[in-house]
Amino acid sequence: DYHVDWDAAAAEKGGYDWFMLKEIAEQPQAVADTLRGRLSETGEIILDEVRLTDQDLRDVDKIFIVACGTAYHSGLVAKYAIEHWTRIPCEVELASEFRYRDPVLDRSTLVVVISQSGETMDTLMALRHAREQKARVLAICNTNGSTIPRESDAVLYTHGGPEIAVASTKAFLTQLAACYLVGLHLAQVRGIKFADEVGAIVAQLQTMPAAIAQVLSTMEPVRELARSLVDVNTILFIGRHVGYPVALEGALKLKELAYIHAEGFAAGELKHGPIAVIDEGTPVVCVVPSPKGRSLLHDKVVSNIQEVRARGARTIVIAEEGDEAVRPYADHLVEVPAAPTLLAPLLTTVPLQVFACEVASARGLDVDQPRNLAKSVTVE
Amino acid sequence: DYHVDWDAAAAEKGGYDWFMLKEIAEQPQAVADTLRGRLSETGEIILDEVRLTDQDLRDVDKIFIVACGTAYHSGLVAKYAIEHWTRIPCEVELASEFRYRDPVLDRSTLVVVISQSGETMDTLMALRHAREQKARVLAICNTNGSTIPRESDAVLYTHGGPEIAVASTKAFLTQLAACYLVGLHLAQVRGIKFADEVGAIVAQLQTMPAAIAQVLSTMEPVRELARSLVDVNTILFIGRHVGYPVALEGALKLKELAYIHAEGFAAGELKHGPIAVIDEGTPVVCVVPSPKGRSLLHDKVVSNIQEVRARGARTIVIAEEGDEAVRPYADHLVEVPAAPTLLAPLLTTVPLQVFACEVASARGLDVDQPRNLAKSVTVE
Repeated sequence: DYHVDWDAAAAEKGGYDWFMLKEIAEQPQAVADTLRGRLSETGEIILDEVRLTDQDLRDVDKIFIVACGTAYHSGLVAKYAIEHWTRIPCEVELASEFRYRDPVLDRSTLVVVISQSGETMDTLMALRHAREQKARVLAICNTNGSTIPRESDAVLYTHGGPEIAVASTKAFLTQLAACYLVGLHLAQVRGIKFADEVGAIVAQLQTMPAAIAQVLSTMEPVRELARSLVDVNTILFIGRHVGYPVALEGALKLKELAYIHAEGFAAGELKHGPIAVIDEGTPVVCVVPSPKGRSLLHDKVVSNIQEVRARGARTIVIAEEGDEAVRPYADHLVEVPAAPTLLAPLLTTVPLQVFACEVASARGLDVDQPRNLAKSVTVE
Repeated sequence: DYHVDWDAAAAEKGGYDWFMLKEIAEQPQAVADTLRGRLSETGEIILDEVRLTDQDLRDVDKIFIVACGTAYHSGLVAKYAIEHWTRIPCEVELASEFRYRDPVLDRSTLVVVISQSGETMDTLMALRHAREQKARVLAICNTNGSTIPRESDAVLYTHGGPEIAVASTKAFLTQLAACYLVGLHLAQVRGIKFADEVGAIVAQLQTMPAAIAQVLSTMEPVRELARSLVDVNTILFIGRHVGYPVALEGALKLKELAYIHAEGFAAGELKHGPIAVIDEGTPVVCVVPSPKGRSLLHDKVVSNIQEVRARGARTIVIAEEGDEAVRPYADHLVEVPAAPTLLAPLLTTVPLQVFACEVASARGLDVDQPRNLAKSVTVE
């Protein structure tokens, strides 16, 4: 008969080589859990803790999103959704910079802080600074009872479950889901969206876990590609609109895990300087928006892909199923299911996580414990 | 007798090997020319063209700064100065992103566009989008009669003279000077600063050309260091506050000219991921704020330097003369004269320009015409 010989750690990893792989695989469930029970019977978005009145939220005329690292990238995505749905100006800042630059804040400013651990010191210091200036603070956090939600005026918990790997994956996707909910809540409280409009977007969100699972089921070619790039020293990532933070996140994962010089760029910015680093064979990962969202945006990314390819880049293109326009310029094509424009990062990020994990693994590195890094950064 | 044998091109370069070297050397003059004649007899800041009333400027309740590449970095510095002097919220965006994300704009929004050539297509399209939304546009530009200033409501010309090298140097420093003037003008028109306060800051600005010249006269050790790093593949740049855009600019110059994987970071952000790429001997350029500005900020940067050094980094520290606190952690120390906190980028950028130019030169590359790049990007 078959003899199981896992040690305790392997059992905790549920049969995966790394916690990171397990956590990547848990993403459909983590996002579903974060979305569950968010709509009241009368169609209102439900946060977890709210020590603010609806009037306080209606008074908001400026939003700052403040975070570090991967959580900062979720904030960059959130900006697009929140501004699109609420038309409240929304600025995203690194917590370590926000704290020391005297941001213009007052009672009608909402500061959204995002932290997996709820103990990130830079974010906590930014939160305290914001509250001293009388701003309202809403926390998106994965850890019940941690310091950041405790000191906030409102809290939405991501229900991602514990994240052990240092490089954040499911925390990121659940932060995105939480950001969408916060945007919808703000739009609703302010009377900008009807309950049926909010319900329609929530319904779209609820289709995303299955779509994430579909992406996960098609990752073998991405892993193969990753193994073939094990000796590469530079990889660039480009995107526009919500694809830009996805590019930043893809590059960060690769830096964290594989110690490769990976950098993300706004695709339109390349020709203003960074394109000089592209050499024959330099891999460039291109995050393409849906052609059904804003066709002009899609076309611009396609021409950016042509530009880098003309300079010798080897293009790795993440695009929507059936996007024929990118096909001629993709040395490697990774297709993801169709998704609404603003929600696409829930899908396009996933191949980049798998890619970084596999490159690091093929390099023989400790994926769960990259050098120099701690899981929660509790010092400033 | 002595026989001069320069060819025409060399003559144009004024005896320098590269236009870039000539333009770096011209910076004290370029900044002085941009500042000249900006103060009226009654102490008001003078722009070049103003098709707006003072009331229009008093109505401004939000500023966007929109630009690409190096000009974008000058905008990042401007944000600190404008918010500090006016307390008007100011957001900086890449032109290629701004255009396609439906920014929240109206008649009381001022959009400051920055372009050396005045023909940068991404910036021009952003300008037109802003005007369609009824926003006011103020241009900072080096080229009289070009399209961007022609389509703007107000113009401040940088008087940098023609810039031939593709990688921008004197245009950047004059853009910084122009941004400071715009910030002071806004503060003055809105009655937030008295004429004598504005005059005092202009007087500080007017000391900067001599300070830039002093930096330029001490660059031989920087060139030597650059030659010793000719084979390096990765260089990181870190800074906080106004030193953060300086770090981004230093990294961009190295990417553009030497095709080295250089990346700039907010110093506080390193431990949230990017610090993993630091290996034994990785050069890290650290831009240190004046200890006289905000001592907490200075101390944070000093501890960031210690952190990277503990991971094996070789630290190249740009600091104010007499800053003894950084000395123990600097493998290479580059001192610049003391300057007011907000104006420091006029000095701290200069060693990074010289450094990038010398690395590229030592690598045998064409400094004035890097591969893949055009001087003005007149396509989107």
